[in-house]
Amino acid sequence: MKTTIVAGNPKPGSRTLDAAALLARSLSGAEPDHVVDVVTLGPGLLGWGDEAVTSAVESVASSDLVVFASPTFKATYTGILKLFLDQFAGGDGLRDVVAVPLMLGAGPAHAMAPDLLLKPVLVELGATTPAPGLYLIDSTYTTDTRIAEYAERWGGIIAAAAAARTEAS
Amino acid sequence: MKTTIVAGNPKPGSRTLDAAALLARSLSGAEPDHVVDVVTLGPGLLGWGDEAVTSAVESVASSDLVVFASPTFKATYTGILKLFLDQFAGGDGLRDVVAVPLMLGAGPAHAMAPDLLLKPVLVELGATTPAPGLYLIDSTYTTDTRIAEYAERWGGIIAAAAAARTEAS
Amino acid sequence: MKTTIVAGNPKPGSRTLDAAALLARSLSGAEPDHVVDVVTLGPGLLGWGDEAVTSAVESVASSDLVVFASPTFKATYTGILKLFLDQFAGGDGLRDVVAVPLMLGAGPAHAMAPDLLLKPVLVELGATTPAPGLYLIDSTYTTDTRIAEYAERWGGIIAAAAAARTEAS
Amino acid sequence: MKTTIVAGNPKPGSRTLDAAALLARSLSGAEPDHVVDVVTLGPGLLGWGDEAVTSAVESVASSDLVVFASPTFKATYTGILKLFLDQFAGGDGLRDVVAVPLMLGAGPAHAMAPDLLLKPVLVELGATTPAPGLYLIDSTYTTDTRIAEYAERWGGIIAAAAAARTEAS
Repeated sequence: MKTTIVAGNPKPGSRTLDAAALLARSLSGAEPDHVVDVVTLGPGLLGWGDEAVTSAVESVASSDLVVFASPTFKATYTGILKLFLDQFAGGDGLRDVVAVPLMLGAGPAHAMAPDLLLKPVLVELGATTPAPGLYLIDSTYTTDTRIAEYAERWGGIIAAAAAARTEAS
Repeated sequence: MKTTIVAGNPKPGSRTLDAAALLARSLSGAEPDHVVDVVTLGPGLLGWGDEAVTSAVESVASSDLVVFASPTFKATYTGILKLFLDQFAGGDGLRDVVAVPLMLGAGPAHAMAPDLLLKPVLVELGATTPAPGLYLIDSTYTTDTRIAEYAERWGGIIAAAAAARTEAS
Repeated sequence: MKTTIVAGNPKPGSRTLDAAALLARSLSGAEPDHVVDVVTLGPGLLGWGDEAVTSAVESVASSDLVVFASPTFKATYTGILKLFLDQFAGGDGLRDVVAVPLMLGAGPAHAMAPDLLLKPVLVELGATTPAPGLYLIDSTYTTDTRIAEYAERWGGIIAAAAAARTEAS
Repeated sequence: MKTTIVAGNPKPGSRTLDAAALLARSLSGAEPDHVVDVVTLGPGLLGWGDEAVTSAVESVASSDLVVFASPTFKATYTGILKLFLDQFAGGDGLRDVVAVPLMLGAGPAHAMAPDLLLKPVLVELGATTPAPGLYLIDSTYTTDTRIAEYAERWGGIIAAAAAARTEAS
């Protein structure tokens, strides 16, 4: 199972990236195969056809499981994450990818954002999204049990969906 | 695989119900095991503890695959469907159920409603929702190929998710 | 300015109704002219043409300012509130009504529901919705300052929108 | 009344920009005072504190009426528009601004996006949003009557809300 994490935080090496790695590890039992820290792709994100951006898109599109992670900006995912998602082909850019939406916020008020706002973008790109989005508090995700509980509750379903994708290919 | 359809149309025997049955058949290859035409449950829906309502809730909760279908009223699902969904236990009322959101409308303008509005309610109830919502035009769903295409594209993933549920139980 | 409150709680005389009355009073400086405690309309809500339901719809539609209030059920407004909203004419059932979406919940996790879920239904019905939705914690709304702050911040805008409606009529 | 248009299309001088200008003109009766064609701000959008970006943010924040326009990418607004919106202060970055969400798409399927997805971001920034979002078909907006009808139906309410802002300041 090829696992990738995508972190859409304007700061490189963010807690968003760290939380995505923790979640991917909990779900797959291994380090992620690819890491896309979107901001490091730089100004190529503002146009089309940049080589590094294209390569990152291909890594994501060929993965079995991808965690898409964003901090909460203005009650939704970041512009920089959406810039990257805009680089995928509409309808099937994430075909056969099992996608998990992850968002971090300073408090609980935006807990609905992963399912109401981030997941529909992934669905539009053709991803398989069997599990609910996960929302974490950015100051406590390393010490609370939310990631472990999520993996316990949804890991089996996510693995089954990813396996169904692999067999069908 | 136990399959159930739930139709939330204020008119019994509606096209909503018919479309849900067509979709369930396309996905499972068989007639649905249970049919909940919500409006026939009557005024018991307005309170708690009605026997027929409770029995319908139990049928749905013990299913492997459920199509939740609604016409589009005021750009979203109907009040009568939500009345029925309000009868389920929060968090895990649809645990281990693979749920497919289906909506019908007179035109294409509300095509985003199944994923943005109906699916989040099912997710909140703990359902597994691997596939996108389906939106059908109520005057053409019997003659167009939308249901067949959806089943072709998503049937395998949905069956795998339902099987994962059965094995885990 | 004719002010009405609509409370969609399956229990009559609920805190939902009470909070709506407090908000209406803060916004208008007077008791609401009409109160619609939806559940008291009974089984007539399940069909069309019931006299009491029709009369309640007309009271709402002829108001200048209406607070639409709901507890949070399954992370959104209740089925019983939507049953009532389904009775209005699509597109212009709330034309020239200034509508304020209000939701109450046990905790902060569903704070996005008034703007993302309840307001769009009111917009679809043609209402004017100048202000954000308000989300209150059901155990503290009588003692915290959320209603007062909301009225202070948005009361002027809401009154101006309601006055524009009155002049235009 | 100071009017500004913001167009979040990755191509400068787009139909998105053109439609925003048409709408602003219909609503205010004059040319927009400021035009922000977001993509022309360039890589400064990817960080914080860029002079041209800051100046554009200040122009928008000090306007009475702003049309925020985006093409539909992946069933929602663009990453580049959100990059720009992420530059505003949370909570009150658009305080006292009357904001109109406008989106263009190739077909009608995404007509719900302006109200369900773009408007909530503007609300989160503190904007006043009295009118529904407008969704236009990108191939017909210059010849159909949607903009004129919208201005006829909502222009008075929008002007009243903008005037209330001006008086209160």
